[in-house]
Amino acid sequence: MTYCLAINLEAGIVFASDFRTNAGVDQVSTYSKMHGFCVPQRRVLLLLTAGNLATTQAVVNSVRRDIGDPAATTSLNTVEYMFDAARYIGKISRQVQARHTDQNNESGPSLEATFILGGQLRNQPQEIYLIYPEGNYITASPAKPYLQIGETKYGKPILDRMVSPGTSLEDAARCALVSLDSTSRSNVSVGPPFELSLYDKDQLELNRHLVLTEDSPFYISLRDKWVEAVKHGFEELPRFSWEDGSDTLV
Amino acid sequence: MTYCLAINLEAGIVFASDFRTNAGVDQVSTYSKMHGFCVPQRRVLLLLTAGNLATTQAVVNSVRRDIGDPAATTSLNTVEYMFDAARYIGKISRQVQARHTDQNNESGPSLEATFILGGQLRNQPQEIYLIYPEGNYITASPAKPYLQIGETKYGKPILDRMVSPGTSLEDAARCALVSLDSTSRSNVSVGPPFELSLYDKDQLELNRHLVLTEDSPFYISLRDKWVEAVKHGFEELPRFSWEDGSDTLV
Repeated sequence: MTYCLAINLEAGIVFASDFRTNAGVDQVSTYSKMHGFCVPQRRVLLLLTAGNLATTQAVVNSVRRDIGDPAATTSLNTVEYMFDAARYIGKISRQVQARHTDQNNESGPSLEATFILGGQLRNQPQEIYLIYPEGNYITASPAKPYLQIGETKYGKPILDRMVSPGTSLEDAARCALVSLDSTSRSNVSVGPPFELSLYDKDQLELNRHLVLTEDSPFYISLRDKWVEAVKHGFEELPRFSWEDGSDTLV
Repeated sequence: MTYCLAINLEAGIVFASDFRTNAGVDQVSTYSKMHGFCVPQRRVLLLLTAGNLATTQAVVNSVRRDIGDPAATTSLNTVEYMFDAARYIGKISRQVQARHTDQNNESGPSLEATFILGGQLRNQPQEIYLIYPEGNYITASPAKPYLQIGETKYGKPILDRMVSPGTSLEDAARCALVSLDSTSRSNVSVGPPFELSLYDKDQLELNRHLVLTEDSPFYISLRDKWVEAVKHGFEELPRFSWEDGSDTLV
């Protein structure tokens, strides 16, 4: 399984993902699911991947090949709008899935893959897109400025409570890490290392990228302080009437 | 949708559930999903229900009918062990589903239902069981002393972080309410009122039962203080190296 998310803020975009992949409990491995495609001062694009690993690797390889191929009709270096980039990823994903689904006669494991594409092209607004296995795509909204793929539910409440468009990049990044940590505690198929990229709006380059392993002092500190904060928070919650002798609340 | 949970503690059992049911967005209604079957000083049994409302209502009606019927071969008043009670609920659930599945030729909406049954029979340990639509059942373990049914994922991380067998009934009850509140924020099909029952081990009676509406001062206080605690917790999380000028952590 996998858990990736992107948060679209006034200050920029936060991208976060875990490294764990599994095809059955005896085939657990670690792969980066965050792929950057960047031409400094012109365009920054980050792709997060979830789903069938063969499909996502083939898509990323095709994207890289097209960028290096002057004869390619479309590539992430030639698209003029973010939604064109999303459509291009969706089209490649469908082609890869179709290629192998034909051979398998639609039997066997799911070849589906889901992507988040985010970033900015020069003179255009930054955007994030979620690209479905069918190749179609949606963007985020100010009311819910994040997108998630993979094992999304465990880590959603903390985003719903904490993230709004005005949140700082760093606070949103901490929130993304807590969201990843909560997910990894509740589902063993999601786990560290965690990868994090912060994009500053209009900078058109990516220079804050972290990989946090299980032993990373920053991750250990964040995890411990969060547990402490949650425990402390519980102590502050109201007492039931029979605990403190009052019966005003109920 | 629905979210119910039971937590099996050294001090007793906490039961919690929401009231919301929906069959499509234009058929949202409120029903209690917590059903008590109690013979003071002899046995206390609580049943939480999720899934098809017609199935769960028919099961609860059958359970009540059998209790009142001296000719019934089995009822919750005659079972000798908690696992017999779980098997009995599972059997009725399968019968109800089969009755209506035949008429429908297996087409139409799912008639499946899932239950949590918890409580204590005199001179026996307290236990909680999760009863699957197939009629089979599992109990909780000390390592994970809770069971959930319905929309379970959003509210799981807080249980994993906070609940262990030694947790007090009241702290576990507060945790159950935070778990319900987190779920209702992330999924509109789960919502208040929330229902809560606390069973004190070996008491063989139920006398702490609360229904918390959206306007209940206790619920409002708990919700607000939790948001405050989470926000405060975020302020305590470690800064990234570029925020405080250090680069010791990463």
